[in-house]
Amino acid sequence: MTERNKQTEGLTLLGNKKTEYIFDYDPDLLESFDNVNTHRDYFVKFNFPEFTSLCPITNQPDFATIYISYVPDKLMVESKSLKLYLFSFRNHGDFHEDCMNKIADDLIKLMDPKYLEVWGKFTPRGGISIDPYVNYGKKGTKWEEVAFNRLANHDMYPEKIDNR
Amino acid sequence: MTERNKQTEGLTLLGNKKTEYIFDYDPDLLESFDNVNTHRDYFVKFNFPEFTSLCPITNQPDFATIYISYVPDKLMVESKSLKLYLFSFRNHGDFHEDCMNKIADDLIKLMDPKYLEVWGKFTPRGGISIDPYVNYGKKGTKWEEVAFNRLANHDMYPEKIDNR
Amino acid sequence: MTERNKQTEGLTLLGNKKTEYIFDYDPDLLESFDNVNTHRDYFVKFNFPEFTSLCPITNQPDFATIYISYVPDKLMVESKSLKLYLFSFRNHGDFHEDCMNKIADDLIKLMDPKYLEVWGKFTPRGGISIDPYVNYGKKGTKWEEVAFNRLANHDMYPEKIDNR
Amino acid sequence: MTERNKQTEGLTLLGNKKTEYIFDYDPDLLESFDNVNTHRDYFVKFNFPEFTSLCPITNQPDFATIYISYVPDKLMVESKSLKLYLFSFRNHGDFHEDCMNKIADDLIKLMDPKYLEVWGKFTPRGGISIDPYVNYGKKGTKWEEVAFNRLANHDMYPEKIDNR
Amino acid sequence: MTERNKQTEGLTLLGNKKTEYIFDYDPDLLESFDNVNTHRDYFVKFNFPEFTSLCPITNQPDFATIYISYVPDKLMVESKSLKLYLFSFRNHGDFHEDCMNKIADDLIKLMDPKYLEVWGKFTPRGGISIDPYVNYGKKGTKWEEVAFNRLANHDMYPEKIDNR
Amino acid sequence: MTERNKQTEGLTLLGNKKTEYIFDYDPDLLESFDNVNTHRDYFVKFNFPEFTSLCPITNQPDFATIYISYVPDKLMVESKSLKLYLFSFRNHGDFHEDCMNKIADDLIKLMDPKYLEVWGKFTPRGGISIDPYVNYGKKGTKWEEVAFNRLANHDMYPEKIDNR
Amino acid sequence: MTERNKQTEGLTLLGNKKTEYIFDYDPDLLESFDNVNTHRDYFVKFNFPEFTSLCPITNQPDFATIYISYVPDKLMVESKSLKLYLFSFRNHGDFHEDCMNKIADDLIKLMDPKYLEVWGKFTPRGGISIDPYVNYGKKGTKWEEVAFNRLANHDMYPEKIDNR
Amino acid sequence: MTERNKQTEGLTLLGNKKTEYIFDYDPDLLESFDNVNTHRDYFVKFNFPEFTSLCPITNQPDFATIYISYVPDKLMVESKSLKLYLFSFRNHGDFHEDCMNKIADDLIKLMDPKYLEVWGKFTPRGGISIDPYVNYGKKGTKWEEVAFNRLANHDMYPEKIDNR
Amino acid sequence: MTERNKQTEGLTLLGNKKTEYIFDYDPDLLESFDNVNTHRDYFVKFNFPEFTSLCPITNQPDFATIYISYVPDKLMVESKSLKLYLFSFRNHGDFHEDCMNKIADDLIKLMDPKYLEVWGKFTPRGGISIDPYVNYGKKGTKWEEVAFNRLANHDMYPEKIDNR
Amino acid sequence: MTERNKQTEGLTLLGNKKTEYIFDYDPDLLESFDNVNTHRDYFVKFNFPEFTSLCPITNQPDFATIYISYVPDKLMVESKSLKLYLFSFRNHGDFHEDCMNKIADDLIKLMDPKYLEVWGKFTPRGGISIDPYVNYGKKGTKWEEVAFNRLANHDMYPEKIDNR
Ligand SMILES: [Ca+2]
Ligand SMILES: [Ca+2]
Ligand SMILES: [Ca+2]
Ligand SMILES: [Ca+2]
Ligand SMILES: [Ca+2]
Ligand SMILES: [Ca+2]
Ligand SMILES: [Ca+2]
Ligand SMILES: [Ca+2]
Ligand SMILES: [Ca+2]
Ligand SMILES: [Ca+2]
Ligand SMILES: [Ca+2]
Ligand SMILES: [Ca+2]
Ligand SMILES: [Ca+2]
Ligand SMILES: [Ca+2]
Ligand SMILES: [Ca+2]
Ligand SMILES: [Ca+2]
Repeated sequence: MTERNKQTEGLTLLGNKKTEYIFDYDPDLLESFDNVNTHRDYFVKFNFPEFTSLCPITNQPDFATIYISYVPDKLMVESKSLKLYLFSFRNHGDFHEDCMNKIADDLIKLMDPKYLEVWGKFTPRGGISIDPYVNYGKKGTKWEEVAFNRLANHDMYPEKIDNR
Repeated sequence: MTERNKQTEGLTLLGNKKTEYIFDYDPDLLESFDNVNTHRDYFVKFNFPEFTSLCPITNQPDFATIYISYVPDKLMVESKSLKLYLFSFRNHGDFHEDCMNKIADDLIKLMDPKYLEVWGKFTPRGGISIDPYVNYGKKGTKWEEVAFNRLANHDMYPEKIDNR
Repeated sequence: MTERNKQTEGLTLLGNKKTEYIFDYDPDLLESFDNVNTHRDYFVKFNFPEFTSLCPITNQPDFATIYISYVPDKLMVESKSLKLYLFSFRNHGDFHEDCMNKIADDLIKLMDPKYLEVWGKFTPRGGISIDPYVNYGKKGTKWEEVAFNRLANHDMYPEKIDNR
Repeated sequence: MTERNKQTEGLTLLGNKKTEYIFDYDPDLLESFDNVNTHRDYFVKFNFPEFTSLCPITNQPDFATIYISYVPDKLMVESKSLKLYLFSFRNHGDFHEDCMNKIADDLIKLMDPKYLEVWGKFTPRGGISIDPYVNYGKKGTKWEEVAFNRLANHDMYPEKIDNR
Repeated sequence: MTERNKQTEGLTLLGNKKTEYIFDYDPDLLESFDNVNTHRDYFVKFNFPEFTSLCPITNQPDFATIYISYVPDKLMVESKSLKLYLFSFRNHGDFHEDCMNKIADDLIKLMDPKYLEVWGKFTPRGGISIDPYVNYGKKGTKWEEVAFNRLANHDMYPEKIDNR
Repeated sequence: MTERNKQTEGLTLLGNKKTEYIFDYDPDLLESFDNVNTHRDYFVKFNFPEFTSLCPITNQPDFATIYISYVPDKLMVESKSLKLYLFSFRNHGDFHEDCMNKIADDLIKLMDPKYLEVWGKFTPRGGISIDPYVNYGKKGTKWEEVAFNRLANHDMYPEKIDNR
Repeated sequence: MTERNKQTEGLTLLGNKKTEYIFDYDPDLLESFDNVNTHRDYFVKFNFPEFTSLCPITNQPDFATIYISYVPDKLMVESKSLKLYLFSFRNHGDFHEDCMNKIADDLIKLMDPKYLEVWGKFTPRGGISIDPYVNYGKKGTKWEEVAFNRLANHDMYPEKIDNR
Repeated sequence: MTERNKQTEGLTLLGNKKTEYIFDYDPDLLESFDNVNTHRDYFVKFNFPEFTSLCPITNQPDFATIYISYVPDKLMVESKSLKLYLFSFRNHGDFHEDCMNKIADDLIKLMDPKYLEVWGKFTPRGGISIDPYVNYGKKGTKWEEVAFNRLANHDMYPEKIDNR
Repeated sequence: MTERNKQTEGLTLLGNKKTEYIFDYDPDLLESFDNVNTHRDYFVKFNFPEFTSLCPITNQPDFATIYISYVPDKLMVESKSLKLYLFSFRNHGDFHEDCMNKIADDLIKLMDPKYLEVWGKFTPRGGISIDPYVNYGKKGTKWEEVAFNRLANHDMYPEKIDNR
Repeated sequence: MTERNKQTEGLTLLGNKKTEYIFDYDPDLLESFDNVNTHRDYFVKFNFPEFTSLCPITNQPDFATIYISYVPDKLMVESKSLKLYLFSFRNHGDFHEDCMNKIADDLIKLMDPKYLEVWGKFTPRGGISIDPYVNYGKKGTKWEEVAFNRLANHDMYPEKIDNR
């Protein structure tokens, strides 16, 4: 039985069971599976326009679209578990920058990827909006330098924002 | 008779015969022809917004737009055969990342190109969408380094996604 | 002291007090104030891209952009109270269509407007998305006919949707 | 027990059971539930960019985005069942116009709605694309006239198409 | 054998035979088939961004996107034959307005439709571009009035043009 | 000397003098001139994306794009004076709806137009934005009915808002 | 010899001769030709994003995109002559509204059309921009009523303007 | 008590107190807080489309969208204080370039960041608009070189501007 | 007499003579003129959305938008001659990739430029479209390396394609 | 008195005096002022969508949007004088490439900047449009290399052009 087959079994169970939605930050929701395409490095990106958390000061809901990209090493994050994890910020109070750092930290811990980045684009409060961008390259590999280069060249063409 | 003329004969037959559509993954559908512009390196890109496969766990149809770019060496992929090959995923169950890796592997095997990349942009399930990106540069040529550089600088400006 | 002045006093208090965010559906959050421009009929529209509720079957979070338009009679809805009311659906389970009908019913009860409409545009689940549209014209006035005409001519040019 | 409660029970079961995907046209997949907002007429629109069927002549896959809008009478179509029904055209051969008429006929039969319309926007073949639009108003009601008026004023501003 | 079945036979032949491209205006290229959905009136629109003809004065190529919409009576135009017919203007010299009138005349003659419209949007020459719009409603039916109403309300929101 | 010539004299002076900017609401800044095209009714629209005022409760700056359209009778509003008038709201505290009503009232008083409308589209506060729309038709003329019809059919296609 | 043939002769000459560009308003530049499609009423629209004139007060250049639509009676305006006519405003000083009225007057005098409209969309000065819209329907025909209806329903969805 | 907790206390007070809006340039409005994610370098971007100041020569209001990005060292700028600071330019007269340099200088002084950039995109006056871009990298660190590289590669794809 | 003046004489003749349109591939249509700005290297780009040729297998018309950019050495290509040359592919049968290579070869032969690139973006056939990109840098100059670098970094952000 | 103050005096005079518009190319219209932010290098960009000149062969008006970016050394160009200078091409006959080179030469002479670039994007003639791009870096500084690098990487993503 190949790696993929063994892992597919587990995912079949996942396909059957009824999903529970947790609305309090819980990194244990994240699940990984084996990367079966280890003969090359490649990127996987997740688009998640349904991120919401609470402002830790005022308790007002915050909203963001989050883009997560990574280059897997041996493990990958299962997309449904990632969704459940991101939904778990729903009633959790945290600053924008801390949420993005936390997501990066949790995914690094889960997958030990070669490279990873998390970009949050929040809706405005009082006319101003905040977009934190966090990235990571595995220490001692060429991806460490890649991470710095991507950071150094980050977002030189900001999208046009008019709050409408 | 030049390379191109000989090959055009074959393609004339292709133009005449009735097309059969295979809906089960079949890399034998791919056909190559000779690159007659070997005096320079150049890019060819295919845009294919009609990719569909099945989720191997739930059997639910998946949909993606796929972009394939390559720098030919001696062979090129015939576009109609490429279309038929991509349509052959229609009733085939596979993960997003595996589909993209498989397409890259099959085209590398067919053409032995100098460079190749495959980017799939899937529609969301449960609010989250996945975009795998795979590339390749021929070992021992400068395109190996090109491939790493393109991977290292991949998608620093993710397109705006709102699931609508 | 004019109508507006008296009402401004109240709103000044509102400006001072710390806002509490309620995440369980509560129509009592809605507050009205007097329409001081009663010499003409006019429209007010609210754009609210931060609506979220829960699916009553699966408990999965739902997301929508909501557009609310109305022609006031004697009362108007205060915008901050409307925001708090809309945020109160956050942990409330309800169907898309029922949410839109409920919002319309609550605003009609609050303001007794001449005309009102509520349009929700939800993000997709499983590849399909739902956009309910509800409207109302005060019985026995010309706005009753306006409401029917607007319903009869609703959305003849659906926005382009590709789930990305 | 109210109408809605009884019906929610059934839907809870639906939430639990494993979905089967049928890829041969099957109108029995459609399920209805009671409209609990019968105190007003309102619109519900479904956006479905993942429609695919087969050309009955060449067997080539066809792709379309489908927009379905209706005004319910006593029954409504359940969105997940609608999705499964639309996916059932996957390996079914039919002309563009016939698909749209069939979808309209099946939904009219299921729900007996006051008004319904179906608009398909297909991708091009050989440089030309086809967009059929079908609608219906219940005979003997004012919605019969609405249907004609909407047809008579259909799509006076065609979207810009350049096949890219 | 139903209408559709008989006609499908003919179209199967069409599917097999090798297409010949005629580049001199030839209305005989148009082919019709039976409308099998005569239980309702509905619209079919064709989008054709690949129209080209020649200027009858200067012989310079002209380019346009053409939108054709119609409500069938008993006959419909076969889309591939329509494509071939439109391609037949390729080396034909004619004014923009005359091309659009000719296309309308030919399709009316072919199908005797209830309603038909043809809108051409040409690229500029010398900084100015021309968009003729032609329509038709069958005399003695309500579609005659529809045609006038659509003409009277034509294009009140011209698309933004900057020649780039 | 014609109407236009006399009036051009005055405007020449205006062209010479140094402009003073008043930042406290002042309707006396508005200036009119004669409509010399009285042989027909026509529309003039002003686009003004630089409107700003203060919230009367919190003193926070508000921002809007304002669209003003009118059909002149004997007088027209001079565009530079309109700009100065709109800039005079800069340090003036007023509600969104009251600003739009005030602008309409002042322009009606200045020009006694056949028809006039004012549409403000404000930026969001706390995730919600407000767009008031006010219009007017001269009593006892057909423009009174036009005004009602335009109000009754106002904004049936709200622009897509995502607060970014 | 048909109408069209006779007229084509003249246009052939036009095709040969060297064009002279006049930069001082000159309505004599306009040339007409016969409408050979008199069996139906139809629209012709011209898009002209290259209009420029001078401010009569300050002499500063003004810029606009002009949209001209008409329903011909017996005569049509030749597009190249229209371009030359519109270019003749280049060094001519006139107000925005007067330019649009003048263009309408000149084209009505030239062609005696059933219907005609002229819409100018100017670039801003000092943050404000002006868009005059002028139309005309032949007196004593149904197009007189059409003209009023189009005016009464003009531009209910102003394009989004942010001066960038 | 962690850094973050101590700082959150202060911010809670901020959440309670009534905001005062200062409209005369005041860098003391800026407040910082501790960066708790010092284990990595990351970007934070602020989008502020509501910037307005006065022309120091003519006193005419100027409008801009401002994008501020930085890589924090030990301190970060509190977003509400940044908003108040940016609003304090409201009645302050200064040139576009000087405003952008001043904002950069003030934020560098406040936070001593590793990297910072400020990009202002102003609305046009007399048909021309100005977009200053200012950046900074901490002397003696690799961010000094990053700053030069970002400057050297700044804005090679200017956004399309047509002043509408 | 300067270079430019001598050359302007010739172009004046060109301005007078009647243009002949050749629809069979003819590189002799290309004409060059002297680069008078040899004190610097600079780019010239041509945008040509009106390219059409024939498929060499099926004879079906192909359509593309072509972008040509180059850095001149001593000669430049005259734009009208380039247009005539590109129009000469109209009735010529050739593959997409071969057309782009041929255009590059012909322009290199004509001008001997420092750098040149040709990018064709074709419309789809059967759901798939092809975009060849060809470039060239003069051997033995720094532009040879530039050409490789531009090729190596070509099109890392493919435009969104949905065939509509 | 600081540099800035002295220079502001002069600009105050400029603010008062009546502007004269010159329509014959005149580089003497350009005026400079001191750069007061010499503690850093920064970019200033001008957007000018209102450029028009005459074709030197046919006398036909040409239109372009021009983007000018520069890094100042000791002097800056005053924006109103730049506008007047650009307007001075109005009745001047010159080729597209020569206009862009001339503007660059004049601004370099005026300001002696560290870096400067000029990009013109013209509207099409006969279906083809031309976009020259010219840049400059001060000899013997690092900006000389920057200029080459920006040229070498110029416009690798041409904007989509369809001449509409
Ligand atoms: Ca806000
Ligand atoms: Ca926006
Ligand atoms: Ca989903
Ligand atoms: Ca989207
Ligand atoms: Ca989905
Ligand atoms: Ca979309
Ligand atoms: Ca196709
Ligand atoms: Ca398109
Ligand atoms: Ca355009
Ligand atoms: Ca365009
Ligand atoms: Ca938006
Ligand atoms: Ca301006
Ligand atoms: Ca704009
Ligand atoms: Ca614009
Ligand atoms: Ca598209
Ligand atoms: Ca042209």
